[in-house]
Amino acid sequence: MQIGMIGLGRMGGNIVRRLMRNGHTAAVYDRDERAVSALVTDGAVGAADIEDLLRKLTPPRVVWVMLPAGPITEGTIETLSGLLSAGDIIIDGGNTFWKDDIRRARWLKQRGVHYVDVGTSGGVWGLERGYCMMIGGEKEIVKRLDPIFSALAPGEGDISPTPGRDDRDGRDSRPTRGYLHAGPSGAGHFVKMIHNGIEYGLMQAYAEGFDILKNANSEALPKEERYNFDLTDIAETWRRGSVITSWLLDLTTAALTRDPQLGDYTGYVEDSGEGRWTIMAAIDEAVPADVLSAALYARFRSRRDHTFGEKILSAMRQGFGGHVEPKDRA
Amino acid sequence: MQIGMIGLGRMGGNIVRRLMRNGHTAAVYDRDERAVSALVTDGAVGAADIEDLLRKLTPPRVVWVMLPAGPITEGTIETLSGLLSAGDIIIDGGNTFWKDDIRRARWLKQRGVHYVDVGTSGGVWGLERGYCMMIGGEKEIVKRLDPIFSALAPGEGDISPTPGRDDRDGRDSRPTRGYLHAGPSGAGHFVKMIHNGIEYGLMQAYAEGFDILKNANSEALPKEERYNFDLTDIAETWRRGSVITSWLLDLTTAALTRDPQLGDYTGYVEDSGEGRWTIMAAIDEAVPADVLSAALYARFRSRRDHTFGEKILSAMRQGFGGHVEPKDRA
Amino acid sequence: MQIGMIGLGRMGGNIVRRLMRNGHTAAVYDRDERAVSALVTDGAVGAADIEDLLRKLTPPRVVWVMLPAGPITEGTIETLSGLLSAGDIIIDGGNTFWKDDIRRARWLKQRGVHYVDVGTSGGVWGLERGYCMMIGGEKEIVKRLDPIFSALAPGEGDISPTPGRDDRDGRDSRPTRGYLHAGPSGAGHFVKMIHNGIEYGLMQAYAEGFDILKNANSEALPKEERYNFDLTDIAETWRRGSVITSWLLDLTTAALTRDPQLGDYTGYVEDSGEGRWTIMAAIDEAVPADVLSAALYARFRSRRDHTFGEKILSAMRQGFGGHVEPKDRA
Amino acid sequence: MQIGMIGLGRMGGNIVRRLMRNGHTAAVYDRDERAVSALVTDGAVGAADIEDLLRKLTPPRVVWVMLPAGPITEGTIETLSGLLSAGDIIIDGGNTFWKDDIRRARWLKQRGVHYVDVGTSGGVWGLERGYCMMIGGEKEIVKRLDPIFSALAPGEGDISPTPGRDDRDGRDSRPTRGYLHAGPSGAGHFVKMIHNGIEYGLMQAYAEGFDILKNANSEALPKEERYNFDLTDIAETWRRGSVITSWLLDLTTAALTRDPQLGDYTGYVEDSGEGRWTIMAAIDEAVPADVLSAALYARFRSRRDHTFGEKILSAMRQGFGGHVEPKDRA
Repeated sequence: MQIGMIGLGRMGGNIVRRLMRNGHTAAVYDRDERAVSALVTDGAVGAADIEDLLRKLTPPRVVWVMLPAGPITEGTIETLSGLLSAGDIIIDGGNTFWKDDIRRARWLKQRGVHYVDVGTSGGVWGLERGYCMMIGGEKEIVKRLDPIFSALAPGEGDISPTPGRDDRDGRDSRPTRGYLHAGPSGAGHFVKMIHNGIEYGLMQAYAEGFDILKNANSEALPKEERYNFDLTDIAETWRRGSVITSWLLDLTTAALTRDPQLGDYTGYVEDSGEGRWTIMAAIDEAVPADVLSAALYARFRSRRDHTFGEKILSAMRQGFGGHVEPKDRA
Repeated sequence: MQIGMIGLGRMGGNIVRRLMRNGHTAAVYDRDERAVSALVTDGAVGAADIEDLLRKLTPPRVVWVMLPAGPITEGTIETLSGLLSAGDIIIDGGNTFWKDDIRRARWLKQRGVHYVDVGTSGGVWGLERGYCMMIGGEKEIVKRLDPIFSALAPGEGDISPTPGRDDRDGRDSRPTRGYLHAGPSGAGHFVKMIHNGIEYGLMQAYAEGFDILKNANSEALPKEERYNFDLTDIAETWRRGSVITSWLLDLTTAALTRDPQLGDYTGYVEDSGEGRWTIMAAIDEAVPADVLSAALYARFRSRRDHTFGEKILSAMRQGFGGHVEPKDRA
Repeated sequence: MQIGMIGLGRMGGNIVRRLMRNGHTAAVYDRDERAVSALVTDGAVGAADIEDLLRKLTPPRVVWVMLPAGPITEGTIETLSGLLSAGDIIIDGGNTFWKDDIRRARWLKQRGVHYVDVGTSGGVWGLERGYCMMIGGEKEIVKRLDPIFSALAPGEGDISPTPGRDDRDGRDSRPTRGYLHAGPSGAGHFVKMIHNGIEYGLMQAYAEGFDILKNANSEALPKEERYNFDLTDIAETWRRGSVITSWLLDLTTAALTRDPQLGDYTGYVEDSGEGRWTIMAAIDEAVPADVLSAALYARFRSRRDHTFGEKILSAMRQGFGGHVEPKDRA
Repeated sequence: MQIGMIGLGRMGGNIVRRLMRNGHTAAVYDRDERAVSALVTDGAVGAADIEDLLRKLTPPRVVWVMLPAGPITEGTIETLSGLLSAGDIIIDGGNTFWKDDIRRARWLKQRGVHYVDVGTSGGVWGLERGYCMMIGGEKEIVKRLDPIFSALAPGEGDISPTPGRDDRDGRDSRPTRGYLHAGPSGAGHFVKMIHNGIEYGLMQAYAEGFDILKNANSEALPKEERYNFDLTDIAETWRRGSVITSWLLDLTTAALTRDPQLGDYTGYVEDSGEGRWTIMAAIDEAVPADVLSAALYARFRSRRDHTFGEKILSAMRQGFGGHVEPKDRA
């Protein structure tokens, strides 16, 4: 199949590369001309702007938008909606809020344009490992795009089959190959959102565990109860046969192997929309999400020197007990 | 009654003063001679050391220990146990771990010495407002000490009676006057421990609320959804007729009135044993204590620049997504 | 002043009563004719429908809407907007989401109608104690309505003044009397939202503390470390001189005095929008709100028999350890 | 090597089997004679009681205790200490509290008996996959036991090597083969404890995520924002190339494949000591552990119909707002 890609960052570029490696063709556009040139070198057709890109695609056209979620993606899709024709398809592969997908799909439908939302996991490893994809949209349209999704997905690889699952029973075989038609518009990004929410929780669980190990030789402890652990070796050991093996643990082990002090990291941790939206979805559904929330808040807190709330605490403590907090950590 | 007081800090000194104001007498000792002198000026009998103190008391003697919980209190009680006679009473008014009370009471009983644990709330305000006391120990002994507890307690004051409570029905009237015989040894400190655990939770609830108000004009928000709130006026308003009126809110309001920025506080917040032991008690009982734990952890976090856990998070994020966190807050 | 009140439930009816007691007049409407009749008996002018209500008010008219937040309030304000004239004022005294206030105010402004949002705390006690009010809207309009707010507010009462606050210094004296012009449209409901968010946190802190006390005689504990506490007396004691005195504690004490087992309550706990929106505001601002979230989730959980998440846990435990969970609590 | 095994449950029996498969010999004892017989059939030497077991071992003897942590293990080790000679070794392979290890090791050392604590992960899968082991004790003793640990460990298997780790550099190669000498006495169980603490957090993160997916078609949501997700297919998809792949996810997928409703599970979830001790260690070190605590509390809560705390909440709500909660879920 032929695809048009708008946005050639870390994700967009490699998606095009993986498609071309699998026999698909692509026309590509990015504001950054060098990004376009790099892909042209790899075999893509370069475009000077969006209109040019659309001219280089054969109808019905498939345009994959791989840009930062929010106004940039929104604006691009608005632009596209004015240029596309009935039967064309827009794929939003970014991290869009799923309610925006519902709104957009409804609005594009009026113009006969199809809209497919794809949540993509795999990060910088996707080019080699393949992309795990969660897809929302009309059944027929998702089916029509299958050659693309199939090429991008990791495939069965050497992942051991799930006991009891046999796709020859008539089960949808796409999940076994690493992609999913999750439901109507927004469903793809919803499932990807939850994926990231879980990711935050998993990461924070490891982070707290390693933190307790690291502080096991704290001077606040009695001398005979202190340990000076080798975190690198602990992580390595847990990779083998333990209950908590995971890809995230593999990555943690690699980082600790490079530098057990993780001296290159300040401890300032960003978060993105999905972790936040996950909490909002939980609240909308009245589902308790203590762990996923705490994981998000740990990131918020990591980015502040102190909160105003902490000053409130000290002020109360002085008020009722005359406590004067020590000067801050030097 | 006559009492011997060991430890003349903020709490011990004022307890003696309040007792003397109510017609009791006291012999006092502290390592710091000036603390002793100050109380002597106020009418107490000064002692040069613990043995001297005991000589100045008429048997059966009552010795109130008001020292930092832990080794200092423990050592003092060991010393006392070697000097006291059957029938004497030790009161531990500090913030002792309740399981230590159980152990000590059992051990002192073998020597005929009685042990009473008193959890005391009221802080620097106790001299004027009276001390709210939670008491553990033998029924008869606690009764014998009633003149002391009654004098220290705040009394009914102008606190409105609880609807439906009428102590003339045969109810214990001590709670209405602000003190409680909570149960056998350790019960006083157990109840005080939970009091402080709740205190942490209440404080953190206010802290988070004011934090959200404070950040309502964050530049991360759309301009038309920002507010620049006057926290001082908000706190003052809530003191009148709202559901969240409390003494802690009164103290917060006073602090915000002095300085709405709370510029004198760094945001470094100490915690003491009771908050921690509350969580341990919850875990022993398998009672979920999400709020009390989160309140404790917020204090732990306030005292660190960054946690090692946060670096673990950044290392993972770089591992799977190539994310490089921005340099830390300047 | 004259006011029109739509919605004569627990809150609306008593607001009208308190206004009339203070010399104001009111025309009133409710779908429930009996509610109207009851107020007419108390001196209000009854109306048969909204149009009738508006006819009975002298321009510029002030209409206070006191209805359940959401579609009912929204629909009523839409209806009013078609009937009111330039210069009229709508007050929304319900628990509206603050972003809806911003939207409505902007839209009503185009028709020359003023919009004031009032968050009201005080519940069933407001008639006697007065209502603590947090107000958003245009400065001049809020000022014009001052006779109403001043009459509804609790006033200084016997609340002790905040040290350091002297309204004769030129400070706004309204907070000292229990009401606040918090800022432009939405600010009133925003502050009320945070008030309720804090309320959830405070309540949960008490709830967890009493839960630990209640379970201190759990059979899972060693016999010599169990206590059988009198929660009623503990609560009563804490009302006097302790750090955790509050109105919520007063209410808890009253309930425990009626029945220490709280046998009339199932433990199923509702939540309303404010607690949820508080978390969303925290997330928008990237403010960690661990305690306020945990308090909300405890309510969510209280309303479920079991979560699906808990079944997931059991399924994993069986998967890796062969653990079979006991049959559920009988 | 020759080993004596006390305790032939799920873990103990399979450990013996895996050792014998690798050329080691074993004498075995269990209170349950059938468990002994089963192992004898597999090639072990059966013993009638502990004394008999010790007679069947050649000095210096190695006795592995694989019993429920707590009084049973403690009592067995006390018995052994009276029967063993200088130079003999006790291995505690159960889930013992690490501070108990420190105490025991000190006490056994006085008798010349060595003590090794081994935390073992791998559960019912260990016989085939091997056991991930975290070991505490004297360096030389752990080394002497290496043939045993090496046989039990999973080995490198087909786990991809950690980039940057090359054991030929002089690194300890045991972690790469799935076992670890973590440090002196207690270190093994400490690291295993943290392993389980992390496990709780990971499990709860998945549980909450699937719970939100499951409730995405809740009737509380607007119709056009509901999804009816296929959790089995979602889990399967995430196993391939996503960031959250893990063994726990594999197990979850298998369970959902068997029954997407997980109808065999009530949702009542046990917890064991390690999850609790992890929190206590965090508190001792003043490390915030929000996620690991929340994961533990979710299990506590799962085992109650309602908490007393929830009744406290309802009582307050009625107190200030007249709210009457609906009857409980039918």
